[in-house]
Amino acid sequence: MPRPHETGPIYLDCDTGIDDALTLGYLVAEGADLVGVGTVSGNVSAELGARNTLDVLALAGRADVSVAVGAHDPIGGTFQGGAPSVHGANGIGDVELPRSPAAPTGETAAAMLSRLARAHPGRLHVLAVGPLTNLALALEADPELPELVAGVTIMGGAALVPGNVTAVAEANIHNDVVAAARVLEAPWPVTVVGLDVTMEARFEQRHLDALLAGPPVAVALGRMLETYFRYYTPVLGRPACALHDPLAAAVALGAVEPTLAPVVPMEVDTTGGPGRGQTLVDLRSRYLGYPPLPGARHRIVLEVPQGFGDDLAAALLRLSD
Amino acid sequence: MPRPHETGPIYLDCDTGIDDALTLGYLVAEGADLVGVGTVSGNVSAELGARNTLDVLALAGRADVSVAVGAHDPIGGTFQGGAPSVHGANGIGDVELPRSPAAPTGETAAAMLSRLARAHPGRLHVLAVGPLTNLALALEADPELPELVAGVTIMGGAALVPGNVTAVAEANIHNDVVAAARVLEAPWPVTVVGLDVTMEARFEQRHLDALLAGPPVAVALGRMLETYFRYYTPVLGRPACALHDPLAAAVALGAVEPTLAPVVPMEVDTTGGPGRGQTLVDLRSRYLGYPPLPGARHRIVLEVPQGFGDDLAAALLRLSD
Repeated sequence: MPRPHETGPIYLDCDTGIDDALTLGYLVAEGADLVGVGTVSGNVSAELGARNTLDVLALAGRADVSVAVGAHDPIGGTFQGGAPSVHGANGIGDVELPRSPAAPTGETAAAMLSRLARAHPGRLHVLAVGPLTNLALALEADPELPELVAGVTIMGGAALVPGNVTAVAEANIHNDVVAAARVLEAPWPVTVVGLDVTMEARFEQRHLDALLAGPPVAVALGRMLETYFRYYTPVLGRPACALHDPLAAAVALGAVEPTLAPVVPMEVDTTGGPGRGQTLVDLRSRYLGYPPLPGARHRIVLEVPQGFGDDLAAALLRLSD
Repeated sequence: MPRPHETGPIYLDCDTGIDDALTLGYLVAEGADLVGVGTVSGNVSAELGARNTLDVLALAGRADVSVAVGAHDPIGGTFQGGAPSVHGANGIGDVELPRSPAAPTGETAAAMLSRLARAHPGRLHVLAVGPLTNLALALEADPELPELVAGVTIMGGAALVPGNVTAVAEANIHNDVVAAARVLEAPWPVTVVGLDVTMEARFEQRHLDALLAGPPVAVALGRMLETYFRYYTPVLGRPACALHDPLAAAVALGAVEPTLAPVVPMEVDTTGGPGRGQTLVDLRSRYLGYPPLPGARHRIVLEVPQGFGDDLAAALLRLSD
């Protein structure tokens, strides 16, 4: 049974992507109040991400959710073509989903975010699981945004663990370092769900088997996951995958309560050096249990309870088309 | 009883400094074949470091060991005055030691290192527990040095833990980033003993009490440690100190055998950005148990057995003057 969550209306910013598809399914299964979805180039282009988002939402029975196409290029840069080796050529493991009758709204993702923040003043939660281009553009166009939004949860970065695109940088941050820096500098409270916890949240072979033996929506997600497993198996040393975006969604919903998430200073390396795209999290107060620091606003999730893979699989198995 | 170690002749490069003083005492107590010591500006100036080194060696009964004054300034920079808040104004906790009758040799530390490497071809071990300026200057003056030296052990850097001068940078690397980059690029095998393990190697109050109740050499080191404890107590949340340099010495001697020390790629951030001075260690193969990578030469110590504080205190209590 879905737990009711009291998170309020959610705007999702994503780059769908296999783990984004899982996230959409999870948000629907958990009964989240998903009031709009914007897409950004990351795992795939913003345009393809919107197509995938519409199709996954329709598959999960929520063709009514508005989807806006966001930024194609990172700020000051050019989209580099995404991650077909991870997510397949079409971004969803080369699974061909039925095409949703719905189309994108026509507004930009940044405009949608600003519109929704004003429609739900003080209540909207922003969940960003791709590069942060749209959030940065929305901040630029609407400087009041930080006061209007209840909170921001980001999947991105790495504090005390290796990166995934360089030794120290995680893909969502690395794909648009300027946007990431602006979003972290803005005066809103950000919860950062990074590789410290998302690399440890896993689907194992048994979860994949359960999805493939489930209802049609779960089977479609399971077939996408076969591609994701092919990427992650040589990284992790056994058949499994990390659950980056779904874990961030679970933290945003309150379904996963972090067991260690200090509020500490954080900045992004925007140099051209080897650290470009790293999230530099100041954890020097670790021996003191991270006492509050003046000016620190960002909650960095460092530990969560085990077992999220079980919860996610159970949620996705509840989806029926 | 001292264990005999088969490490061969050792050149120590240091910036004495309280934990450098402990290191000198430890090397003497363990019967290491200390064939020369060079100093570099870091905790204190190279000149003051040489004075402290001579006096500590004399205190420990080894006034015969040659000491050379090394680089005053980092490569391309200017010495910033050291860390009197950590080590006291004179670098050794404002303890006044009897002045050694010995004087520095008159050669530079870089020249001493090169001379010793040629005197012990293929056998000399370099233990560097300060900024890496002298090693970089020696490499520049004597390009054959990497082939002549048996190995290099460095105290410096941080891989999966916070830095100690910035969120990500450790002091020895940060104090001369150009030298650190050159030393890590040179074709010699380097073992890196960084904050990942040195912040966990500790003297507690009981160790300090034991030294202060010991023979005169131990009492002098204990009085220096009172200053070091004053710095570390608010960092660690209880009366204690980290044992950076002595742990690196113990790894170099083989007295501490790392339980996790993968050979992985490593570079230094030499940009002017927020990551300056960070050691970027590529640990992305962690889930596979760090298989050998072509070209990787540096052994990064990530885990050591507990209990080094006990061993170090016992060694220092064996010193008699």
